[in-house]
This record gives sequence, C-alpha cells and structure tokens, in this order.
Amino acid sequence: MRTLYHQPLCPVSRKVRLVLAEKQLDVSTVEENEGERRDEFLALNPSGCVPVLVEEDGTTICGAGPIVEYLEDAYPDVALLPGTPAYRAETRRLVEWFDDKFAQEVSTALVYEKITKRSLSASYGGGAPDMAIVRTTLHNIRYHLDYICYLMESRSWLAGDALSLADFTAAAHLSCLDYVGDVPWSQYPDAKDWYVRLKSRPSFRGLLADHIPGMPPPRVYANLDF
Amino acid sequence: MRTLYHQPLCPVSRKVRLVLAEKQLDVSTVEENEGERRDEFLALNPSGCVPVLVEEDGTTICGAGPIVEYLEDAYPDVALLPGTPAYRAETRRLVEWFDDKFAQEVSTALVYEKITKRSLSASYGGGAPDMAIVRTTLHNIRYHLDYICYLMESRSWLAGDALSLADFTAAAHLSCLDYVGDVPWSQYPDAKDWYVRLKSRPSFRGLLADHIPGMPPPRVYANLDF
Repeated sequence: MRTLYHQPLCPVSRKVRLVLAEKQLDVSTVEENEGERRDEFLALNPSGCVPVLVEEDGTTICGAGPIVEYLEDAYPDVALLPGTPAYRAETRRLVEWFDDKFAQEVSTALVYEKITKRSLSASYGGGAPDMAIVRTTLHNIRYHLDYICYLMESRSWLAGDALSLADFTAAAHLSCLDYVGDVPWSQYPDAKDWYVRLKSRPSFRGLLADHIPGMPPPRVYANLDF
Repeated sequence: MRTLYHQPLCPVSRKVRLVLAEKQLDVSTVEENEGERRDEFLALNPSGCVPVLVEEDGTTICGAGPIVEYLEDAYPDVALLPGTPAYRAETRRLVEWFDDKFAQEVSTALVYEKITKRSLSASYGGGAPDMAIVRTTLHNIRYHLDYICYLMESRSWLAGDALSLADFTAAAHLSCLDYVGDVPWSQYPDAKDWYVRLKSRPSFRGLLADHIPGMPPPRVYANLDF
C-alpha cells in the first residue's frame, strides 16, 4: 500500500489526506517529526519537509503541491482540478491564497504558537504561546472568513460552481485552527455553511478522528453541528 | 495582446517571462510596484502580488504557479511539464525547491537587501544592505549550487533527461542574483555549464536586456562567456 509521511496538524499534509480520501486511494500514514531530520526521511525528501507520498512501486513524491498535482495526473477519475484552463487557474489562485497568504498571516503562526511550541524545549523556543502573535492571527483570520463569505455570495464553492482543490486546501487550513478552537464561525454564517458541507463529506472523517496526545480537540471540532 | 504585470527582479515573474518566451507567446509587460497597492491592480489580484497575466479576452490569472500551469493547459505545444506523472512530480518538486526553499534561504533576502531597500524610504526599512544578511545568503547559495552540480552528475537537466519548468524556475532565481553579481559560478563548473545552456536560449534574451535605473548589471550578467 502507498505511504504518506505527514504531521496531523500540518495544513498541507491535511490537504493531501483529503485529496487521497476524495479519490478513494488507500494509504497508510506515518507521523514524521521534521525536527528530528531522520536520515531515512532525508533520503526520501532532501528538503526534510512533510508531506511525502511513497507509492507501492517506490515512486516518491515530495511536497503537497507536487503530490496533489501528481494525484490529479495519475488518478483522474475524481477530478479536483475540474473545468476549463481558466477555471483551473482560478482554483490554483485560491490554493496559493490559502497555502501562502493564509498560512503566512494565520495558520503557520497559530499552529506554531499553540501546538508546536508545546513539544519544543525552551532552548529551541518552546514554552507558552506568545499571546501578541496569537491575537494578531485571530485578527487576521477575520479578513479571510470575510473573503470566503464574499465568494459564497456568487459561487457554490470557492472557485465557482464545482467543488475543487481550492475548497480542500482552505478547509485543511481551517480544520487545524478548528482543532485549537480559534475560528469564530458564528460570526461568518456563509463561511460556516460552506465548511459544514465539506466537514460532512466522508473524506473528512480521518481528520475529525485526529487526537494529539495531551491536547484533545474541543468538543465542536468533530461535531457537524457546531 | 496579453499583458503581464511583473517586477524585473522578481524571480517568479522572470520564470513566467521565460515560459511565455519558450512557448513563443507574445506579451506586453507592465512593471507593477506592489508597494503602491494600486486599486486597479488590486481589482485584478486581491492578494496585491505580481505576476498577473491578463489574456486578450480579459481572462486574468494571478500568481506564478497558476500562470505557468495555465500556460501548460492552454498552450501545450511546447511542453515544460513533459513526461510521465512521476517525471512531472519530480519537476514540480524542484520548482517548489527553488520557489520556496531557495527563495527563503537565498533569493528573497538578497534581492530585498541589494535592490528593494534602495527604493524604500528609511521609515519603511530602506537604506544600505544589512551585510550580515547578505553574507548568510552568500553562504547558503553554495549548498544550492552544490545540489545543482549533484543533479548534473546523473542528469541532462534538473529533473532528468528533458528540459522542464524546473530549469526555468531555478534559472529565473539565479538570474536575479547574477544581476547583482553574487553567484560564484567559477567554483561550480557543472552548475555553470547548465546555466550557460539556459542563458544561451532565445527565451533568455528579454531577461538579459533588463536594466534597473541607477543599478546597471555587471558586465558578465548578459555575457554568455562569464
């Protein structure tokens, strides 16, 4: 069976898990701590980053972007980059929006402050979250939820009429923040409705079953009625 | 004619210019200063970032990744993501390597210190380059040139036997550093040979003609015998 090296609260690893599940591709998962810089893992991916997908024949694909494009190439039956070249470009614009802009302004810092720092020693920057950074990210997330609501005024899904990789990318990031209970869903009902539709899909079940030792998710995390 | 909004020493804008030229697609270019946050430009791309490509029919594609994938979709005659799904995945791994890792460790900081800071007022961080940062990037670039030499031991081009987007991505970043004269080519002859082959292509001519007002490139920048 294919193997995915990942981190449970890494947004782009979560995106790959969603895409594999949507395409109904079986996978066994290995949690990889990038900080350990294991030789065996560096031999798979010299950049040392998750996610990495290894196919049964040994074909190794490194990085979330290359993995999801590869899965579209190799397993096109369930298309997550559907439509015309222009529709695919709009999908990829939103993928970049969330993987770059949203990550930079919200998810990377918030996951680092609230999750990663718990597992680091003090000499590596571990300790309590820096609340000034947390407050900034919680301020920034509002602009992105507004943007989702704005898109939902004229579209069924983020990129347009068809469910796409844009939705799974955004939902993967938001699901990490949801794990730490930091998404003000009730103030953004159209974004919430969109997220409920994604969260209800069978492909989401694996993510909703995640449980970080010592840091259980809030009750609403796995609840479809949140 | 289609229009590309870009910055001359933005590596990913340069990649798009190379891809357009390889595919022999005519384009008029507009230099966009992201810092101005022009309303008309924000209406094209709400992220406010270059590059943005506008087709003659108004179709607007935002971001280097979406643009090059769109150009592959819409104009496949000259394929820059050739080969099998696995070859395309290796190509995209190296694209990510240079656009993410190389950018983070070398090109973003070096272009900012040596170019961008010249055009910023002191209150926005302008002024002389921080030489500690410059030294760090010049240290880091050696690992990447080593990596190119390592790949060249067994391959004709970065991703394998076929010229691909990986080569144009890496060359776009390196060409920016070449503009400020900071690539120690002579110590990495295999990387230099690879770069000479790219620099000799007609698609490179537009880049080699670039001239930033007040900051002419070193003589070797446009010279094929450097």
